[in-house]
Amino acid sequence: MSTNTVRVVATLNEKGLDYELVPVDLRTGAHKQPSFLALNPFGQIPVLDDGDIVLFESRAISRYIASEYKETGPDLLRSGGGSAETAALEVWLEVESQQFGPPIADLVFELSIKPLLGGTTDPAVVEKQAEKLGKVLDVYEERLSKNKYLAGDHYTLADLHHMPYTFYLMATPQAKLVTSRPSVLAWWHDISARPAWKKTAASIPI
Amino acid sequence: MSTNTVRVVATLNEKGLDYELVPVDLRTGAHKQPSFLALNPFGQIPVLDDGDIVLFESRAISRYIASEYKETGPDLLRSGGGSAETAALEVWLEVESQQFGPPIADLVFELSIKPLLGGTTDPAVVEKQAEKLGKVLDVYEERLSKNKYLAGDHYTLADLHHMPYTFYLMATPQAKLVTSRPSVLAWWHDISARPAWKKTAASIPI
Ligand SMILES: N[C@@H](CCC(=O)N[C@@H](CS)C(=O)NCC(=O)O)C(=O)O
Ligand SMILES: N[C@@H](CCC(=O)N[C@@H](CS)C(=O)NCC(=O)O)C(=O)O
Repeated sequence: MSTNTVRVVATLNEKGLDYELVPVDLRTGAHKQPSFLALNPFGQIPVLDDGDIVLFESRAISRYIASEYKETGPDLLRSGGGSAETAALEVWLEVESQQFGPPIADLVFELSIKPLLGGTTDPAVVEKQAEKLGKVLDVYEERLSKNKYLAGDHYTLADLHHMPYTFYLMATPQAKLVTSRPSVLAWWHDISARPAWKKTAASIPI
Repeated sequence: MSTNTVRVVATLNEKGLDYELVPVDLRTGAHKQPSFLALNPFGQIPVLDDGDIVLFESRAISRYIASEYKETGPDLLRSGGGSAETAALEVWLEVESQQFGPPIADLVFELSIKPLLGGTTDPAVVEKQAEKLGKVLDVYEERLSKNKYLAGDHYTLADLHHMPYTFYLMATPQAKLVTSRPSVLAWWHDISARPAWKKTAASIPI
């Protein structure tokens, strides 16, 4: 169920790497126990244990996987690309993290997670965050009307990082933020049709 | 004055690269004019124009500079380092962006920027964000008691990304969040004594 964990699972599936998922029960506070804090002192999932290397922060993990296992599956960081492609990749990875991430995380929490935890969706929060996300997606619409993917002609980690929260959003009435923007919608159809994503999505219990 | 611009200037100075600073007057809304939006559709500074490559998002710019000009000055991404060092670098770059960034940005805004804009500091916001940042810095204290720098033995972009906001914080009463933590304080003394940072700090009008 964890969006940030899905980000890592999607990367592992895209690379075709083997992994074992070890559940951490947030309801019993397993993530704040000393044994888990030894892996991530911030007490959050996901954590990756790769041999003797332990990492946390989903975007750090996915970037590590993409650079460490460059030769396996698609090169999600386009390491052979030129300077302009590297620049675009860095920019759109950051746009996801700084511009897209905060409003969509709040929206998905309010619409999907809060009710599951026994709370009630606050329409004022939904309206405010939907407006913020809409403005961000206006910029995406322009970008994606001229480029097939965020970093240019190829699917990269910049696209992938958007997928977990967008997947959750698409199951809410606020899916219209995506469906009302033709280039964003075409991009979502394209990237969510990837076999690795289908495998990832099939394991999400919503 | 812009913290996010300082992040890029600090990177350029650390690498010893030449650059020209082009002021954008936020007070007159220059950043929302078509000519600026053509550079950054989100209408924010900083923007880097490097020949025919234009980038925005300060952390994307600094990372681009560090990889594109790897051979000039210190290798801030430790590209020759092993997998463990790469992992630690990715993790602490993300920790800055996800854990440290939001509370310190709110604190510095409330304590330093808001009064400059004619507003009044709200003590409730200060207390809340100081508590959040304190918890984050507890993790840093532990990390820096065992490692000279965030990614290990060497100064990297992960350290540098913290400098603009920490510099501003140190000029407020909340500097105690840093001074009360010996390893964090020793780290700050070390990294802020770097010649490239002294040059950067000398140009900040506070
Ligand atoms: N920035 C982190 C956020 C991780 C995060 O918020 N994880 C959630 C589950 S999706 C969690 O562990 N929440 C429990 C908590 O924060 O105490 C990442 O990208 O990995
Ligand atoms: N995530 C962006 C944030 C940039 C940002 O917030 N810049 C401020 C100045 S420090 C700005 O341009 N504010 C005007 C606005 O957002 O309209 C970055 O790291 O570059």
